Amino acid sequence: MRLSPAISELIRALRVLPGVGPKSAQRMAFQILERQREGGLQLAKALNDAVEKVGHCSDCRTLTELAVCEICVDEQRRASGLLCIVETPADVLAIEQTGQYQGSYFVLMGHLSPLDGIGPDDIGLDVLAQRLAKEPISEVILATNPTIEGEATAHYIAELAQQHRIATSRIAHGVPVGGELEYVDQATLGHAFSGRKRLQFD
Amino acid sequence: MRLSPAISELIRALRVLPGVGPKSAQRMAFQILERQREGGLQLAKALNDAVEKVGHCSDCRTLTELAVCEICVDEQRRASGLLCIVETPADVLAIEQTGQYQGSYFVLMGHLSPLDGIGPDDIGLDVLAQRLAKEPISEVILATNPTIEGEATAHYIAELAQQHRIATSRIAHGVPVGGELEYVDQATLGHAFSGRKRLQFD
Repeated sequence: MRLSPAISELIRALRVLPGVGPKSAQRMAFQILERQREGGLQLAKALNDAVEKVGHCSDCRTLTELAVCEICVDEQRRASGLLCIVETPADVLAIEQTGQYQGSYFVLMGHLSPLDGIGPDDIGLDVLAQRLAKEPISEVILATNPTIEGEATAHYIAELAQQHRIATSRIAHGVPVGGELEYVDQATLGHAFSGRKRLQFD
Repeated sequence: MRLSPAISELIRALRVLPGVGPKSAQRMAFQILERQREGGLQLAKALNDAVEKVGHCSDCRTLTELAVCEICVDEQRRASGLLCIVETPADVLAIEQTGQYQGSYFVLMGHLSPLDGIGPDDIGLDVLAQRLAKEPISEVILATNPTIEGEATAHYIAELAQQHRIATSRIAHGVPVGGELEYVDQATLGHAFSGRKRLQFD
């Protein structure tokens, strides 16, 4: 039995979503057609709207509908002199949710990956270099992922900041809060020891 | 930080998909906007097309773009006299993929559930009664799910078929092929014993 063309096409198109294989796509298509037709139309509209309207912030490169995003137009955040470098807009969201950071961001939209042909300009390091030269930035905080590519990217940006004589820091790596030492991997535990902090008693 | 409205709306709309929570929806939205804009537009078009074009087969109630679906127009299948009752179009697809069944289908698009106000007419049993009265059906095969509601629905339809003096069968329940006895639940193992088949030697 062949499914009708519109259903097959919907199943095929749903597979563009990350983590959606043939079986999930089929389940999603039937769910929409059987019970969620209104929601399906709303999703179609939201997709069209978002793809049409959302672009990149000209300052920090994050995804936004505005020319310059809400965080970049915030004078107080700019005045902090802190610039946090992250790989994706989702990282910005995660950091904002901690409520701990009050500086600006720069979103690479990826990481250096010479094998895939992704060089410094592809992740906006030319734009970053201009900002480091022009703006009164006192500290660059490297919050790229603790992967090989993320570390290499952090190292590259640290050298760039060094050229502009700007202090650079890397976010701490160690045992996650609530984690049990027994189940933490060797590399993380290694980082936790080498990055240990001396306790101060008053 | 608030996400821009178009992104928030896309994340909200994606949650209409089954199995997609807030975190997956966010990941999907960023993935589409960062890397899959073309795919996102195609998905929007596929959703609009499918919701607009796909309706129900007037004979078997499955999802189709046609007035009467491909299986229902097949004379050979009708001539078999077999009518298989299933709950959803996905069940039809699963049975078709076995290649073992050459009869017609009737899709309930649900099951009897008096507590949710779903009675016989809501799952098309009035249409089914008409078909049983008019068409030369020799056997009704009950392939509803082996759940409480599925069994109750099967029982109700069996009585309906009885009234029209049509032979009725229920698909076999037992140990799944490739499964290990040790891990099979009690109810299934009970069914496997009560439904055992005597081996024939020639």
